[in-house]
Amino acid sequence: MSEIRKDYVKNKWVSISSNLTLKPKDFPIMKVETSSAPAGFCPFCEGNEAATPPEILAFRKGKEEPDSGGWLVRTIPNKFSAFALAGELEEKHIGLYRFCNGLGKHEVIIETPQHDTDFHELALERMEMIVSTFKMRYNALAQDERIKYIQIYKNRGLFAGASLAHSHSQIIGFPFKPGENDGLPQYYKDQGRCLICAILQQEQDSNQRIIHEGKYFVALCPYASRFAYETWIVPKRHTEHFGRLTEAEEKELAWFCKKLSMAIVHSLDNPSYNFIINTAPVNSLYEPGYHWYMEFTPRMLVAAGVEVATGVYINPVAPEDAAPILRESWDR
Amino acid sequence: MSEIRKDYVKNKWVSISSNLTLKPKDFPIMKVETSSAPAGFCPFCEGNEAATPPEILAFRKGKEEPDSGGWLVRTIPNKFSAFALAGELEEKHIGLYRFCNGLGKHEVIIETPQHDTDFHELALERMEMIVSTFKMRYNALAQDERIKYIQIYKNRGLFAGASLAHSHSQIIGFPFKPGENDGLPQYYKDQGRCLICAILQQEQDSNQRIIHEGKYFVALCPYASRFAYETWIVPKRHTEHFGRLTEAEEKELAWFCKKLSMAIVHSLDNPSYNFIINTAPVNSLYEPGYHWYMEFTPRMLVAAGVEVATGVYINPVAPEDAAPILRESWDR
Repeated sequence: MSEIRKDYVKNKWVSISSNLTLKPKDFPIMKVETSSAPAGFCPFCEGNEAATPPEILAFRKGKEEPDSGGWLVRTIPNKFSAFALAGELEEKHIGLYRFCNGLGKHEVIIETPQHDTDFHELALERMEMIVSTFKMRYNALAQDERIKYIQIYKNRGLFAGASLAHSHSQIIGFPFKPGENDGLPQYYKDQGRCLICAILQQEQDSNQRIIHEGKYFVALCPYASRFAYETWIVPKRHTEHFGRLTEAEEKELAWFCKKLSMAIVHSLDNPSYNFIINTAPVNSLYEPGYHWYMEFTPRMLVAAGVEVATGVYINPVAPEDAAPILRESWDR
Repeated sequence: MSEIRKDYVKNKWVSISSNLTLKPKDFPIMKVETSSAPAGFCPFCEGNEAATPPEILAFRKGKEEPDSGGWLVRTIPNKFSAFALAGELEEKHIGLYRFCNGLGKHEVIIETPQHDTDFHELALERMEMIVSTFKMRYNALAQDERIKYIQIYKNRGLFAGASLAHSHSQIIGFPFKPGENDGLPQYYKDQGRCLICAILQQEQDSNQRIIHEGKYFVALCPYASRFAYETWIVPKRHTEHFGRLTEAEEKELAWFCKKLSMAIVHSLDNPSYNFIINTAPVNSLYEPGYHWYMEFTPRMLVAAGVEVATGVYINPVAPEDAAPILRESWDR
């Protein structure tokens, strides 16, 4: 059985199949080694701090000097960034074309000094430091009025776009709002309520696609999943900005990240995956309807010509089929 | 140098870098074997016609029976399709969710009976049969009023989403308009002229990004390229529907496909690539401003978390740098 479902967040359709014909290891790319870098010198390893630009922030064991060893989570500028936070945004035209300077900020969060420790293997305390780092850097970047949207994301494995194997995530401050979540203020305008709150309510009522419900968060496979085994971590409290996370929420989110990344790696035959944090724009005219949430996207299929052309994803694993598999692994 | 450019077709921004720091073979995924299938039984090979659903159309050497050997280009239904052309489109709701049945048609065009002949190696006459097949199937699908958009595409290589190595392309008839090219009628509404015609004029004037100009088509690297070395083949004649291609245009398009696929494979170290044909919706209310064109997208980078989250592509190869490399290979 196959149906076409409406994704109201992205205002797109997705094609979803609900017969589990493919086991994780049967997806064509799952036969390829996912580790993303050759062995050799790693600029993210402890002791190689001089190979990176000076650090922006670090959680440390003690009171070591910046850019020396002894750190636990270390934030640095992305050395190969396409963005620079200098001057003002200048829009220019050449004939009909329109462009602006690459104003923005691109940072890397190195999640562990150890090269071989994978994200899902990190201790819970380390996860909490990572979530705290996300919040601190989000709120720091939001202070700069030139930044209009802040994207936190992780690329894990070759098919998720990782170019270095050492566990890290990234944060970009954009000088414009990308607009991928415009469906949220649109829904609020049309329906007078928050789409994410409404989804949460409906999922709690049906209990078909929920993986785990905590005190502050719910992990669920969304109705119109673009990716096989796509999972959202949604805060129950209606909160527009990721940076408004409370300390208690930080702790629970860290635990959700640990449990979910373990479930993905263990139950799906160790796929590449991304996580992304969807949130409200900053330093912009206020629009109601945003509600931040975190999205984990296993990358077991490549976006093919049809996705590149139409933006319509063909997802062979219905979220109703995906949720029980991830739930079983989470609960084990 | 890096800048942010506006893509008016998709109504998105792309980040473009104009220092060629990465040679094709230095892209992380280019170190991975791109052939997409293990050796073994291939349902697309001559002699294995019984392993596929009955053929829809075939160019043949002589007057052989359908579904027997002797064919040159063979069109069959996609056996693993998420779409079925049966009944009418029915929209349903479950609470706030909205979905419809998987109404549509999904076909596969097998481009050669020979397993080991790659697309760019096909003889020109074979390319002409493939282009003719595209046109015939496009026009046949457009006859069905339930179909609103027709997407022709090719996945070549593992990182372009190919699951079978045997050279083939695909065509999907959708029961809705995906809307990725909505920028075209929008531009016409705002500016009173066709965006693609205007782009063509500006590119011919500046001559910075053109690879080759023929009698009927121009091959160029577009100003706001999402993908490194992305190339468009644009018909000079303002034509909304791909199916309106003349016979003379068919022949030249086939030659452009051969030359461009050769240039991509030879000058870019044999990457995975897609091609897609962007065209006007069918069986829909008329909107001026569409202009069909073909897009080749080498897949030398994986869409990472930032692209998945924001839809903003970070492209490390400016089209001004890409065009001379492809042009040199084309002209050789």
